[in-house]
Amino acid sequence: MTYCLAVRCDQGLVFASDSRTNAGVDHVGTYSKMYVFEYPGDRVVVLLSAGNLATTQQVVAILKRHARDPQATESLRTFQHFDELVGYVGRVSRQVQATSGATAGAMVDTTSTFILGGQIGNERPDIFLLYPEGNFISCSEQMPFLQIGEIKYGKPILDRNIHRGITLEDAARAALVSIDSTMRSNISVGPPVELLLYRTGELRVLRHQTFDLDTPFYAAVKEEWQNALRRALDNLPRFDWE
Amino acid sequence: MTYCLAVRCDQGLVFASDSRTNAGVDHVGTYSKMYVFEYPGDRVVVLLSAGNLATTQQVVAILKRHARDPQATESLRTFQHFDELVGYVGRVSRQVQATSGATAGAMVDTTSTFILGGQIGNERPDIFLLYPEGNFISCSEQMPFLQIGEIKYGKPILDRNIHRGITLEDAARAALVSIDSTMRSNISVGPPVELLLYRTGELRVLRHQTFDLDTPFYAAVKEEWQNALRRALDNLPRFDWE
Repeated sequence: MTYCLAVRCDQGLVFASDSRTNAGVDHVGTYSKMYVFEYPGDRVVVLLSAGNLATTQQVVAILKRHARDPQATESLRTFQHFDELVGYVGRVSRQVQATSGATAGAMVDTTSTFILGGQIGNERPDIFLLYPEGNFISCSEQMPFLQIGEIKYGKPILDRNIHRGITLEDAARAALVSIDSTMRSNISVGPPVELLLYRTGELRVLRHQTFDLDTPFYAAVKEEWQNALRRALDNLPRFDWE
Repeated sequence: MTYCLAVRCDQGLVFASDSRTNAGVDHVGTYSKMYVFEYPGDRVVVLLSAGNLATTQQVVAILKRHARDPQATESLRTFQHFDELVGYVGRVSRQVQATSGATAGAMVDTTSTFILGGQIGNERPDIFLLYPEGNFISCSEQMPFLQIGEIKYGKPILDRNIHRGITLEDAARAALVSIDSTMRSNISVGPPVELLLYRTGELRVLRHQTFDLDTPFYAAVKEEWQNALRRALDNLPRFDWE
């Protein structure tokens, strides 16, 4: 499985992803699920993936090939609007799924789901969730985040804390906690954790870091959070009979 | 949907449940999912239910009928071991499902899943998760809780805090927070919340309370928790560039 999320706040965008892949329980791997296409001054496109790894790798390979080809009529570099770019990735994804699905047969799920986010020129930065069918949604002003994969364990912390006025760094910390909670409760989501921060208007990546369990910063976040939760529980109101 | 959980700690047992039922999104109801069978001095049996409401109600009706019948060869009152009692409930559940499933056809899921817990005589108090198939599991010493229904949102707080040495009241507070987080993130889980505490060896219910959103204690727990989480996030370590 997988857990990836993206946040859109006024200051910019935050992307976070785990790195565990599995085909059954006895074929477990570590792959980055965050793909960054950065053309400084022009556009930044970040892709997060969940689902069939073969489909994802094939989609990304095609996106890269198109983007390198100056003659390509369609590529991550040709579109002037982000929603058109997402529609193009949806078409590539459906083509790949159609081919692999026909070969793999009905018993194998060859679908992939993506989050795509970034900024093109002067457009507002945005994030989209791209379904296997090729259609897509953005987030809402009230709930400015998107998740794919094993989304439930880490949703409460986002529901309670993510809003459009949050700083990039606070959103990034909430994202780390959301992934950490998921990794603790579900072995199909695992380290390292990747984090990318993008600041509105900069048209280049602000920060892109990878954290393993023993990375000092990440270890400190984990420990602090665990301690804070214990204190929070200790400080809850007593029942009337206590 | 539904969310119910039970905790087994050295001090005793804690049961908690929400009260929302739904058949599709336009048929939403409020039903207790906690059924208490208390025979002071002899045994306490608590049943939590998730799944098909018709099946659950029919199972409970049969359990009550058997328990009231002094001639019944099998009932919640006849068994001397809790696992035998759970096996009996499993047989009743399978019979009900077989009947309703045959009538309802393949398009309707008539299965129900239960948590059963309590104490009989001098046996150790225990909790069991009863599958629709009639088989069942207990919890482990390392992870002394069970959940049914919409379990993922509220699992991290339990994973981080529930252990066999926890007090009944602390386990009850963690259970309330677990259900509150689930209600906030998923509309198919809703108030009121029921909470039952059982202390080892007492063979009678210690506390059984129902909390609505505006019950002062529950409202205070919700608010305190929300504030504590915000403080916890605010106090996490800064990134090295901040």
